[in-house]
Amino acid sequence: MQLAHLARSLGLEVEGDGTLEIEGLAGIDDAGPRELSFVTDSGYVRALEQSRAGAILAPPGLEVDRPCLRSPVPYADFGRAVALFFPRARPAATTHPTALVGEDVEIGEDVGLGAYVVVGSGCRIGSGTYVHPHVTLYPGVIIGRDCELHAGVRLRTGVRLGDRVVLQNGVVVGSEGFGFATDLHGRRVRIPHRCGVEVGDDVEIGANSTIDASHPGHARLGHAQPCTRIEAGVKIDNQVQIGHGCIVGAGSALCAQVGLAGSTVLGKHVFMAGQSAAKGHVTIGDGALIGGATSVTSEVAPGAQILGVPPGMDRRRWARIVAAWKRLPELLVRVREIERRLGSSD
Amino acid sequence: MQLAHLARSLGLEVEGDGTLEIEGLAGIDDAGPRELSFVTDSGYVRALEQSRAGAILAPPGLEVDRPCLRSPVPYADFGRAVALFFPRARPAATTHPTALVGEDVEIGEDVGLGAYVVVGSGCRIGSGTYVHPHVTLYPGVIIGRDCELHAGVRLRTGVRLGDRVVLQNGVVVGSEGFGFATDLHGRRVRIPHRCGVEVGDDVEIGANSTIDASHPGHARLGHAQPCTRIEAGVKIDNQVQIGHGCIVGAGSALCAQVGLAGSTVLGKHVFMAGQSAAKGHVTIGDGALIGGATSVTSEVAPGAQILGVPPGMDRRRWARIVAAWKRLPELLVRVREIERRLGSSD
Amino acid sequence: MQLAHLARSLGLEVEGDGTLEIEGLAGIDDAGPRELSFVTDSGYVRALEQSRAGAILAPPGLEVDRPCLRSPVPYADFGRAVALFFPRARPAATTHPTALVGEDVEIGEDVGLGAYVVVGSGCRIGSGTYVHPHVTLYPGVIIGRDCELHAGVRLRTGVRLGDRVVLQNGVVVGSEGFGFATDLHGRRVRIPHRCGVEVGDDVEIGANSTIDASHPGHARLGHAQPCTRIEAGVKIDNQVQIGHGCIVGAGSALCAQVGLAGSTVLGKHVFMAGQSAAKGHVTIGDGALIGGATSVTSEVAPGAQILGVPPGMDRRRWARIVAAWKRLPELLVRVREIERRLGSSD
Repeated sequence: MQLAHLARSLGLEVEGDGTLEIEGLAGIDDAGPRELSFVTDSGYVRALEQSRAGAILAPPGLEVDRPCLRSPVPYADFGRAVALFFPRARPAATTHPTALVGEDVEIGEDVGLGAYVVVGSGCRIGSGTYVHPHVTLYPGVIIGRDCELHAGVRLRTGVRLGDRVVLQNGVVVGSEGFGFATDLHGRRVRIPHRCGVEVGDDVEIGANSTIDASHPGHARLGHAQPCTRIEAGVKIDNQVQIGHGCIVGAGSALCAQVGLAGSTVLGKHVFMAGQSAAKGHVTIGDGALIGGATSVTSEVAPGAQILGVPPGMDRRRWARIVAAWKRLPELLVRVREIERRLGSSD
Repeated sequence: MQLAHLARSLGLEVEGDGTLEIEGLAGIDDAGPRELSFVTDSGYVRALEQSRAGAILAPPGLEVDRPCLRSPVPYADFGRAVALFFPRARPAATTHPTALVGEDVEIGEDVGLGAYVVVGSGCRIGSGTYVHPHVTLYPGVIIGRDCELHAGVRLRTGVRLGDRVVLQNGVVVGSEGFGFATDLHGRRVRIPHRCGVEVGDDVEIGANSTIDASHPGHARLGHAQPCTRIEAGVKIDNQVQIGHGCIVGAGSALCAQVGLAGSTVLGKHVFMAGQSAAKGHVTIGDGALIGGATSVTSEVAPGAQILGVPPGMDRRRWARIVAAWKRLPELLVRVREIERRLGSSD
Repeated sequence: MQLAHLARSLGLEVEGDGTLEIEGLAGIDDAGPRELSFVTDSGYVRALEQSRAGAILAPPGLEVDRPCLRSPVPYADFGRAVALFFPRARPAATTHPTALVGEDVEIGEDVGLGAYVVVGSGCRIGSGTYVHPHVTLYPGVIIGRDCELHAGVRLRTGVRLGDRVVLQNGVVVGSEGFGFATDLHGRRVRIPHRCGVEVGDDVEIGANSTIDASHPGHARLGHAQPCTRIEAGVKIDNQVQIGHGCIVGAGSALCAQVGLAGSTVLGKHVFMAGQSAAKGHVTIGDGALIGGATSVTSEVAPGAQILGVPPGMDRRRWARIVAAWKRLPELLVRVREIERRLGSSD
């Protein structure tokens, strides 16, 4: 594909030789003379100088020494170029003969239901949505428009998805939360979790992540609706666990293996790195950033940047540090005693 | 529903105006004047004073300023009220025409098999059990009475479930454990894990949790049966991983994303908070409590309360602390030297 | 089975009474007088003395006081004995009538496709491979010879498996990685991940693990192929997460709940213990060993042994240590001041 042709397809301006033949895409360090790459800001100047890339997607104002497509959002447009270069056929918007659809189901236009899909009674599926094979929709599930549910997704009764929601394989939404009471005989008995889960527009959830339903007894910290809620634009990576009654504010991003205990409330645009976690019933303020493998155990202020992960190091050195920790409380006392003596000796 | 009617349904006594119309249920902070809430002990006195709840489930002896249902176990009875208010139809106890049942399968009375269920040869399924769509039972699986297996559960050969077991979506029981030997050519070769998994009565396992089968070579720390074992009444949350040859003692509770390495032995009524883990071949005593994200690396005494998670904090402050750790072993030496000099100068 | 017969089946030499009747297998601490156990080296001498095992698999040169099978790799041969004692019928190499096979699919000889399997168009499945029920193969997936895919596995377009690959239940390979760009309106938009995943020969992946596909923009640290790659002989435990663009070098082993953020590169024969993690874009050298629950945040040299997990301890003692940490930076200053004063007083 000629660079000028690619520019037209993306609606961008080309600078330099538009006749350059582009055969593929690659990162700045790997791209060759017939590949398009991208840079997002001036931090890439050095990499750009050393790059063999034939053409570059670059922001306005950044000097580029080769053919270039100008874009205010080069990475986003690189993504659009990926879709152009590696097109993937959308599955047909038809109902496979083996898809089982229950009673009183409402299905919009251009909906695709794959092989062996099970749609429970009373479900509603919005127009343009595609449901891959082997998905289970329990009775009463509501799905918006233009969603994509990958093979092996399970949505339980009480789940409601907005529009353009993408669920990767093996996602479970609406499973019963971990809530048990103790009965007269000292046994744990289940509290039924029947308040469902609400998932907003443009949410994406990664493979094998799980989001629990809640029950009406959850303290909701002043929020009116008694359900687990994932607000619009939230992006969730693989193997994330969200407990009953959590609220994840609009635009937040949760990386892989994050865990939120019950009734955690995240503000808007919170970022939680991989394997981080929040104790239940805490609030994390808007725009806060939680580092990888960090445990949040108390309130986090808006915009705070929180870290608590020990860095891995040589195991003998680590053992010495841990051994020293154990003597640290006494060390404080000893230093205070030294200061006392020195103070009196002055 | 009138409060007096609700009281009768739950077998509880009403105090105050039994004609109060109850329209819903909510936590103490959220409940309105036509909603029932609950308090479990005197720690809720303040919340109760400020609550707008129309009626309260409360333990005997706790003073309540409004209509009240008395219960020795208010949270458990709140759970029963949830089931009354939000009833969920049990799926029909019938075999869906697309459920495939192998040879020599024994199925009890009132068993439901959902769409596209696959039951391998030689399985046994107890009366009153319901198997949701898309469940796979490998040959020879044994399931007790009144169990519920949610969509996407996979049970491998060698798995045996007790009565009233509930498996949420995507649970895998009996997958081959992570056990490999090194062969003559230095390659890892699989040790076949064929001793199965035994799951006791009243166990519940959360979505996408995995429990591995064991093999007969596992050191079992004196226990006779060579298999992974989850004892009666254990409750397991989502995304928990239990390695080969583990024993989880009766009444224990494992929160989300907990990991037990192979041959871990938990006593009875152990509680492990979210993301905590145990190194293999350790024993955790009865009633021990393991804090969130804490790694257990040696024996834990019965009743011990174990913690080991650094609290997340401002990332710059954290960086200073970590930097100081690295000088801590030398600091101990320096303080000892100071003490020596001061001692001689006394 | 007589010991001599067992020896012949395993191709090993028997020492002592070959007529001993072996009824089962067990670990050294549990084995009884009619059971075979194993020891791998002289570290087991004490256990062997105390063992009631009737016969032992032992390495050459180790003195054994009872009937014995000599093997240079006793644990590996114990595994072969397990397979002999607990044989498991391989499912028939037939296509179940409910398996759906798309257009232009190439299937080798002796391939088994279980009930309700869905094979997308253009897939290729090598000879001797068995696909259990409820597996989804998206269009274009390529699978080698003698693989086994357990129930509920999902392989997305762009995935290519080598020979003898085993995928436990619920494994997802090729899901879209967690890669989003910000568009002109400040919203996160997906970068399509279309570079697939390559899985080498003899790889095994544990239940509910997830491996993401990559996109061509991934910095690949000098590696040529723009895809996530799991090299030959890698063994992956349950609930492991491998992000987009990672490379896991040949012969590496990743224990349960390990997480690799995007573009992590592992050398050959790396070992990562349970719940450990690597920050993205770092390299871990050949033969490195990462301890349990340890976070790797920078480059790891070949052969390094890295640890960073605080040991769980009594929670009050832990609280004192954490409180002392917070005063540690100031403590360093105080000790320096003491040293200054003492130095000048000398």
